[in-house]
Amino acid sequence: MTDPFEDQKARASAWFHSLRDEIVTAFESLEQTHITGPLADRPAGRFDVSPTRRDTGGGGVMSVMRGGRVFEKVGVNISTVYGELSPAAQSAMAARRGLPGMADDPRFWASGISLVAHMQNPHTPAVHMNTRMFWTPHGWWFGGGSDLNPCLPYDEDTAGFHATLKAHCDRHDPKYYPRFKAWADTYFYVPHRGRARGVGGIFFDDHSTGDWEADFAFTQDVGRAFLPAFLPLAERRRTTPWSEADRGAQLAHRGLYAEYNLLYDRGTKFGLETGHDPDAVLMSMPPLATWP
Amino acid sequence: MTDPFEDQKARASAWFHSLRDEIVTAFESLEQTHITGPLADRPAGRFDVSPTRRDTGGGGVMSVMRGGRVFEKVGVNISTVYGELSPAAQSAMAARRGLPGMADDPRFWASGISLVAHMQNPHTPAVHMNTRMFWTPHGWWFGGGSDLNPCLPYDEDTAGFHATLKAHCDRHDPKYYPRFKAWADTYFYVPHRGRARGVGGIFFDDHSTGDWEADFAFTQDVGRAFLPAFLPLAERRRTTPWSEADRGAQLAHRGLYAEYNLLYDRGTKFGLETGHDPDAVLMSMPPLATWP
Repeated sequence: MTDPFEDQKARASAWFHSLRDEIVTAFESLEQTHITGPLADRPAGRFDVSPTRRDTGGGGVMSVMRGGRVFEKVGVNISTVYGELSPAAQSAMAARRGLPGMADDPRFWASGISLVAHMQNPHTPAVHMNTRMFWTPHGWWFGGGSDLNPCLPYDEDTAGFHATLKAHCDRHDPKYYPRFKAWADTYFYVPHRGRARGVGGIFFDDHSTGDWEADFAFTQDVGRAFLPAFLPLAERRRTTPWSEADRGAQLAHRGLYAEYNLLYDRGTKFGLETGHDPDAVLMSMPPLATWP
Repeated sequence: MTDPFEDQKARASAWFHSLRDEIVTAFESLEQTHITGPLADRPAGRFDVSPTRRDTGGGGVMSVMRGGRVFEKVGVNISTVYGELSPAAQSAMAARRGLPGMADDPRFWASGISLVAHMQNPHTPAVHMNTRMFWTPHGWWFGGGSDLNPCLPYDEDTAGFHATLKAHCDRHDPKYYPRFKAWADTYFYVPHRGRARGVGGIFFDDHSTGDWEADFAFTQDVGRAFLPAFLPLAERRRTTPWSEADRGAQLAHRGLYAEYNLLYDRGTKFGLETGHDPDAVLMSMPPLATWP
């Protein structure tokens, strides 16, 4: 049976792969160029790369760097998975998107990149970026986002991050940035704490205008925005000394991040429910976190 | 309007209160009698006690000890809450118990005690105990359980813990222990990791035989079993020295505990969804946890 979407799927998964390569290279370079300031005397961090497997179809590549000069732990996962959605996943999707026919033909295909970085320096925010393409016989869509999670926020860093995301969104539609920024404010909100998990960014899901090329190009640009949004602030903060109190604030903020990730994050739920490698799905968890 | 259940509610909440007093006293005594071995030179831990509030009805008492000789962090919460169940909580309950009329009259009342202890010594298991009474105009029930979470398991400790739970269950019905042990094995299973979170114990919910006195007496005995089940093993292990590798195993095991707690625990979900004080609901979180 020919798959009329074969070409789009191949292009999407190849793009996520190349974006991964670009980010991994840039992060290793950030490690190597950190030659003065805190932790500059330890070996530059390198990514460990390992394949991941989903028992019922597909897999990916997990790249993790631990204990570097700049990154305490950063994971960059790419995966392409397929098979049939479980009844639970079908109803979650149907509730959100109203896809008739899902129960009769529950096939799906999904490919994406997902990144979470927990930094050594409490002055540098933790950061998350994720983009993905989802396909079913009943429709396709893109989703993703990027958000900044400082425990010690700097207005300059927040403004720069948002400005870069906005510039990349504006190439596609001036309505995208305000809409997807507002969506991030809603999505990255921690209801039981009554607060945002960080200083926001953008979030979009179920993005399907009918024009696959345009939506793919937008999704690519969200990925392309990541390094220019994050690297300048990471370079600016990596030499700032920190106190024990700063470290304490960072570990407590990671507790909040872990709560969000396990209680509310869609990608985590989807990954665990669909039987993807738990170590890959939970690569986003902080290396060390505290609770009061 | 007289509440025909007023007396039972008062007796249940008074019982949870007195059980809390008994446990808090025993735990402070365990601190004071730890006079040789690791950390015996630090001040004996004491509980900090504070009231907790649920904005839409009720509250409780949170008792937390941190950084003691034996306990790294232990929380003992009691609460009595009431009001109306949210539509989400109604449907969760209806799905589980099939309570017709919940939507027409969504009032509820719940009272209980909940305890989680994270120990200093990696040779002593983390432990959880919880019992509660739930009332709606459409029915009442009890729930609870207790389970042991060692990172370095000792067969002797596991056997003693289970034997004490069994003896207390057997006073009521010889079928209870095997049934509720099996339920704990199912309930405290971490599906995404394909493993149990610990070495089990007992778990029961929706327990309502029709005889309130009998079900309350059973629930009291589950609470009464806790100290004789846990104290002997805590006394046995508290002087065992530990290595850095033991501490590493403990922190990693706490990561698993945190995952379970945020992803699957019913009490956590119920507490957060019904708007109880998040610091009280999440008092069960480990003081420090790691992820690989």
